[in-house]
Amino acid sequence: MKQNHLAEIEYVRPADIEKRSFAIIGQELRKMNIVLDPEQDKITRRVIHTSADFEYATTLTYSDGAVGTALGLLRGGADIVTDTNMAKAGISRRALAKLGGEVHCFMADPDVAAEARARGVTRAAVSMERASKIGKPVIIACGNAPTALISLHDMIRGGVWKPDFVIGVPVGFVNVVAAKELIMTDGVPYIVNRGRKGGSNVAAAICNALIYILTEPEAHG
Amino acid sequence: MKQNHLAEIEYVRPADIEKRSFAIIGQELRKMNIVLDPEQDKITRRVIHTSADFEYATTLTYSDGAVGTALGLLRGGADIVTDTNMAKAGISRRALAKLGGEVHCFMADPDVAAEARARGVTRAAVSMERASKIGKPVIIACGNAPTALISLHDMIRGGVWKPDFVIGVPVGFVNVVAAKELIMTDGVPYIVNRGRKGGSNVAAAICNALIYILTEPEAHG
Repeated sequence: MKQNHLAEIEYVRPADIEKRSFAIIGQELRKMNIVLDPEQDKITRRVIHTSADFEYATTLTYSDGAVGTALGLLRGGADIVTDTNMAKAGISRRALAKLGGEVHCFMADPDVAAEARARGVTRAAVSMERASKIGKPVIIACGNAPTALISLHDMIRGGVWKPDFVIGVPVGFVNVVAAKELIMTDGVPYIVNRGRKGGSNVAAAICNALIYILTEPEAHG
Repeated sequence: MKQNHLAEIEYVRPADIEKRSFAIIGQELRKMNIVLDPEQDKITRRVIHTSADFEYATTLTYSDGAVGTALGLLRGGADIVTDTNMAKAGISRRALAKLGGEVHCFMADPDVAAEARARGVTRAAVSMERASKIGKPVIIACGNAPTALISLHDMIRGGVWKPDFVIGVPVGFVNVVAAKELIMTDGVPYIVNRGRKGGSNVAAAICNALIYILTEPEAHG
């Protein structure tokens, strides 16, 4: 058995592993007769690459022209606001900086927690308020907290603030499915993963896929 | 439609969301007639909680007495070494610090990259060498790079170093399945997710589940 597993390991140059992985993903999608929208292709494939979960090929949902809109924002130096430090850590800050953008996560700031406690609101709500004050175009990337999407919905409907783009991929079992459906009704351009699945890794993968289209246009994926 | 989604949002106190989520996971596992090993239960459930993917209930694989071994190491102040900054960001450093441990990730250190280039080896190999020099019990948590597991295998088989525990949950399409099978033959206690799935989020969830058993024994999950 040992010998077999060792024999199965093939030497692939580190630089080629990602290329090879995307080729395998492409083969498997063809076997499943799944044809991705050309505009969305690189984003959906990178989410599959980060999760090894082909379900995303059918559940990722894009508003009309979402990818073009997101690319235009990033090209213009938009910032990204995540709802976890994990998603923030997963986004290529160096590549984003080339475009003039930076990544923020307010969720774990001690003063956000203190303000949320004092006002009796969620940390997500305070974080979204902080995002609204950045003063430049903002993409919200939510991979964890449905409360962030619900807070955004309230801000949009209340005329308080509307982010320029929402990546809505929180994961979970309580209010997650409904919060995603809700944000898709708010007239904000979005990429949302319908259902329970998502996560900080998925949020970061979507951001990176968009960033790499601009900074590494020759790259696979 | 809008109204319906809004009506579906239920108010759950933030502190109760996780409890409620774990109750739902328990219900669904019962519906699927899946009974988890009591020792492994909290770990597997937290992975499902972080991924919304019930497949982990059947693919997570534990060496004999793995959970007890890992808890003993953490109780004794073991450090955790991850293979991504994302996994590092996802692990509760504060809770781990209560036990006397800390989290390291060497993978993105500029001098690790420089050394790997100079020696013509992978960054993962150099990172695992750094881990071997920490000088206290070490749990390797690998959610990304199968090369980290392959390097460990080489070190163990070559008598160079053996970590005290391996969490082997890299995700991907190239060498991932084989690297996981390989590390399970090396006589090191492990928690491995068989197959392609895993990720930094899964690695962090397993670490946190183990840490919380010690630091928040009353918690759900």
